[in-house]
Amino acid sequence: MILDGKALSIKILDKVKERVSNLEKQPHLVVILVGNNSASEIYVKNKQIAAENVGIKSTVLKLPESVSEEFLLEKIKEYNENPDVTGILVQLPLPAHIDKNKVVMTISPKKDVDGFTPENVGRLAIGLTPYFYPATPQGIIMLLDEYNIPIEGSDAVVIGRSNIVGKPVAQMLLQRNATVTLCHSYTKDLENKIKTADIVISAVGNKIVRCKMDKKNSVVVDVGIFRDSNGRLTGDVDFDLVSMSAGYISPVPGGVGPMTIASLMYNASKVY
Amino acid sequence: MILDGKALSIKILDKVKERVSNLEKQPHLVVILVGNNSASEIYVKNKQIAAENVGIKSTVLKLPESVSEEFLLEKIKEYNENPDVTGILVQLPLPAHIDKNKVVMTISPKKDVDGFTPENVGRLAIGLTPYFYPATPQGIIMLLDEYNIPIEGSDAVVIGRSNIVGKPVAQMLLQRNATVTLCHSYTKDLENKIKTADIVISAVGNKIVRCKMDKKNSVVVDVGIFRDSNGRLTGDVDFDLVSMSAGYISPVPGGVGPMTIASLMYNASKVY
Repeated sequence: MILDGKALSIKILDKVKERVSNLEKQPHLVVILVGNNSASEIYVKNKQIAAENVGIKSTVLKLPESVSEEFLLEKIKEYNENPDVTGILVQLPLPAHIDKNKVVMTISPKKDVDGFTPENVGRLAIGLTPYFYPATPQGIIMLLDEYNIPIEGSDAVVIGRSNIVGKPVAQMLLQRNATVTLCHSYTKDLENKIKTADIVISAVGNKIVRCKMDKKNSVVVDVGIFRDSNGRLTGDVDFDLVSMSAGYISPVPGGVGPMTIASLMYNASKVY
Repeated sequence: MILDGKALSIKILDKVKERVSNLEKQPHLVVILVGNNSASEIYVKNKQIAAENVGIKSTVLKLPESVSEEFLLEKIKEYNENPDVTGILVQLPLPAHIDKNKVVMTISPKKDVDGFTPENVGRLAIGLTPYFYPATPQGIIMLLDEYNIPIEGSDAVVIGRSNIVGKPVAQMLLQRNATVTLCHSYTKDLENKIKTADIVISAVGNKIVRCKMDKKNSVVVDVGIFRDSNGRLTGDVDFDLVSMSAGYISPVPGGVGPMTIASLMYNASKVY
């Protein structure tokens, strides 16, 4: 069974659009883009288009590569104070002379649509509701729920421990009463951990999941996305091999990718 | 091999004492105790004695069971502002009419010697250095390090997902490059997870670890402490059984307990 993120994302975006149209105050997302990273420019453009499609106002602040950290922090503080702005997102990566953590920590937790500030991360870790869940993990959980996949009591293996995917999705699975094993480059015997799991979520950027799954109802979610040696978009999971033994599998593209943007728009539609 | 927390705690307290004597400003820990819980009174008394022994000034604010949440929050804010106070600790549990989370969130992260505020929890989760690590997990890591137990690359099983022990110790082990599986009441096949692990940390309050360990260098850390049916202090681990197969084991009492107080005093000696 294919976990169709493309189809679900359309449903969610429709709901977000309806929700936005019923709000008294139009949400306004500010996206800050520093420098000329062409991948970042595409991501920002896609976010703008998605926002427009659901009725969320968006503004892109484009700053030169050479911008000072001080200036960037000042801008964020202005947006924090500005009641017209309801969401702030700083597109990563940032140039090396800017301290990413300082930048993220400056965003008001109530406008932190990426859910990356310590306050939101901490709330998630403590088991409180954060103002925003990070987009990709939230999108993954939405996808599992759409297919009624039981999370409670499951053995979940998360591969990759980034702050953007691996660590927060582990927290969210834990809150749903999964037993979570968080794996990474130092993990021993990874294949054995993968094949015995009920749910595998891989967010590495390498063709790392390439084994037969032991359980026929197992679920494999592929968060990786990169180009193979032929320039073709692919994910962490050897789809042809793994799909023969797993019960559910998300494709790349068309799985977690579209869910991430739908989930981000869901966040951007929240007004605190 | 016994992980002797009692002996190590004495060494650490000696170091803290020396450190405090070299500080320009004497640290001042305020402990807030609400109501008449007799266990809490003993804990607070022990913290006071430990603080005195290492040269940390301590003040106990004792409030009646009936105190309003508002009054308690006001007091914490006063201590946050007071430059003479360097650490604030609210003894848990609190009466039911007071929102524990609100109370914890009110403490300034720079005076949060328990490491429980969202800011400190979030910093730990993101991989930044928090102002304070929670006392028990920090004490456990100190104990493992004292015996040169390799954490990197190990398979660690943490049982119990409290905000005080299980979740933060999982984070700290992950930062040291262990592969961590966080187990709890919904976990399937717990015994199998325990016996195949390199490191087991149990913080449940039930005699839950009672199997032969597969690996002869395995490490079992017992954080549980409760009274058995004969009124004797005991822990989560069946010591007689498990000590025959594990390489290292921490006793109860004399293991993690004294490390927690030493670790707390280490925190209380920090002045931001």
